[in-house]
Amino acid sequence: MVKYANRMENVKASDIRELLKITDRPGMISFAGGLPAPELFPVDRLKDVTLRVLEASGAEALQYAATEGYAPLREKIAERMNTRYGTWLTGKNILITCGSQQGLDFSGKIFINEGDVVLCESPTYLGAINAFNAYKPNMLEVPTDNDGMLLDKLEHTLDTVKNIKLVYTIPDFQNPSGRSWSLERRRGFMELMAGRDIPILEDSPYSELRFEGEMLPSLKSFDKEGNVIYLGTFSKVFCPGMRIGWVAADERILEKYVLVKQGADLHSAGITQRNLSMYLDTYDLDEDIQKIRSVYKSRRDAMHNAISEEFPKGTRFTHPEGGLFTWVELDNRVDTRELLAQCLQHNVAFVPGDSFFPNGGGRNTMRLNYSNMTEDKIAEGIKLIAGIIRQKLN
Amino acid sequence: MVKYANRMENVKASDIRELLKITDRPGMISFAGGLPAPELFPVDRLKDVTLRVLEASGAEALQYAATEGYAPLREKIAERMNTRYGTWLTGKNILITCGSQQGLDFSGKIFINEGDVVLCESPTYLGAINAFNAYKPNMLEVPTDNDGMLLDKLEHTLDTVKNIKLVYTIPDFQNPSGRSWSLERRRGFMELMAGRDIPILEDSPYSELRFEGEMLPSLKSFDKEGNVIYLGTFSKVFCPGMRIGWVAADERILEKYVLVKQGADLHSAGITQRNLSMYLDTYDLDEDIQKIRSVYKSRRDAMHNAISEEFPKGTRFTHPEGGLFTWVELDNRVDTRELLAQCLQHNVAFVPGDSFFPNGGGRNTMRLNYSNMTEDKIAEGIKLIAGIIRQKLN
Repeated sequence: MVKYANRMENVKASDIRELLKITDRPGMISFAGGLPAPELFPVDRLKDVTLRVLEASGAEALQYAATEGYAPLREKIAERMNTRYGTWLTGKNILITCGSQQGLDFSGKIFINEGDVVLCESPTYLGAINAFNAYKPNMLEVPTDNDGMLLDKLEHTLDTVKNIKLVYTIPDFQNPSGRSWSLERRRGFMELMAGRDIPILEDSPYSELRFEGEMLPSLKSFDKEGNVIYLGTFSKVFCPGMRIGWVAADERILEKYVLVKQGADLHSAGITQRNLSMYLDTYDLDEDIQKIRSVYKSRRDAMHNAISEEFPKGTRFTHPEGGLFTWVELDNRVDTRELLAQCLQHNVAFVPGDSFFPNGGGRNTMRLNYSNMTEDKIAEGIKLIAGIIRQKLN
Repeated sequence: MVKYANRMENVKASDIRELLKITDRPGMISFAGGLPAPELFPVDRLKDVTLRVLEASGAEALQYAATEGYAPLREKIAERMNTRYGTWLTGKNILITCGSQQGLDFSGKIFINEGDVVLCESPTYLGAINAFNAYKPNMLEVPTDNDGMLLDKLEHTLDTVKNIKLVYTIPDFQNPSGRSWSLERRRGFMELMAGRDIPILEDSPYSELRFEGEMLPSLKSFDKEGNVIYLGTFSKVFCPGMRIGWVAADERILEKYVLVKQGADLHSAGITQRNLSMYLDTYDLDEDIQKIRSVYKSRRDAMHNAISEEFPKGTRFTHPEGGLFTWVELDNRVDTRELLAQCLQHNVAFVPGDSFFPNGGGRNTMRLNYSNMTEDKIAEGIKLIAGIIRQKLN
């Protein structure tokens, strides 16, 4: 047997992943993945832009390219962020990555020594836990309420714990909880972090998918010290299959990400970057996003109505104003891993909530995705799950 | 100032990279990059396959997809390897990566603890040194001749050095030297490695680009114990801008690569994988490769003729039977970094050879790429370099 590096003990196949491999079998109602609605992908427009890019600059698009990414796309991303999130970035602050997952992995590589502390929300995003785990951090969860991290708890942790190397946050429509940080909490958080020289990761894949309430400024917009590293992606507002995300950071920090990107895969595909750039020049992405918002809002409503009607009294669930997920807390007697195994037999799937707690817990919670199923399927699936929960409680 | 992980001390901006940033300025004759000839990219055929893929399966191509890669493409790669390199693989042995650079990074992550020994050829590929360095290995160079690693030296090292975690090899048209391992050396190497449980990385980006002599079996084809991990890529036979490479390995080892890929970027772009798969179904890639071979052979000849005529007597250079590079050893008094600085002022570029020695050395060597310049430019550029060398020696 060959010998693996010690870090591989932390990189394990998840039993959830094995269970969920069957979610693409026909007839399955899946609330498990974070999949966008594929019927909204701009397939015909992409045909058009691909032809134009290959016509205008085929050889350049297919050749090796700069590690940092396609310069016009980097500039457009900086401009979009500035108008939407109150930042003041230029193309030089942007590195194109293969989805924001790659930004998470790079962040682990750049900041985490074995045993270093990473602060995160509780619960937090499973994919970030997986990415960081390879670098053997000590993941410390900061208690959260509906408005974000609890600042008194955070302050106590910052003042008493050593080796805090990174604070990982998802302020908008958090994965898995669907909750967003309030404006006051964002401000208070940034004040609390001031002068501590701890990098703050702002993971923001869903921020453009707000269907209610007012858009809130990003943490990056409050960033006077240049310690906020923003991770963005086109996976949820355009399509995931092109794998285009980005890191936005101060140049001194972005330089590290560029070096790591060069060793990791040289650069992201030129052809897909140019296609997206041409799309942004030719079509109105904001119009597409408006359509996505309206569809997801209806689906969220369908899911909330179904949960309210079908799930047992006393079930608690979040009321996201955007994004893809709602978070459900069931009666303490329900173990959602067991529940999942039974649900899969009835062709309905979700992700058990304990996967989102890096140190365990949340056995009675679940994450439900509403973006990938029609309203009919949502009603049908929630009814099925509710039936199985009732059986378990009786 | 934020604090970085210790490994970042090993991830540094290369001064070469800074120098070479100017190689894309107009009029530059560059022998520096490992760039394929862009005029051979199948731009029109790619328009055709992209339209077909988006027509037939646009929504699937643009959605999240399996970490392992697009199943039909994985099968086609296994079949191509079996017919060409004498392997016996199936699609289950293949993971699609973002170029083979990603396979190098993953190999470092999977096998190297800080201080572990990685054996490599001397000189060896700069991109592999960069990828591995983030995991803080001790890179130990095994002396090589024109036929590959010297087996008596290798045996001594294997018998006396502890913590050897990986042997990194490039048997076909090595980067940077252009040399290929002989059949006897391949056999002898695999016999020497038998029973040692040390993974062997066979990095093989150029093997299909042979323009002289007979194709030799891959190390993977001699692999009775399942310890050879083969890295392949479509960058040199199709185009680099789609970033499609692969890892071929026994399932027990491939499983680790799949887990690491999931944390690193979830999966490679579905649209580019499907485009390539459709291309392989619709067109004859082998015909394209035949054309590439013929063009590169003429360019190699042009470069060798020019070196023979222009460079000082006593200059030694390799005679690659394929691939993209030739390797030059100059008079000991020439420092090729200084030479590069002067050459750039005259708009001609190459890579100084010391970059390819992980422990230093080779100050009088250089790597010359011949695939990316026309025969005229090759003659002109070599003449320019020769003139500057002569000035230095006088």
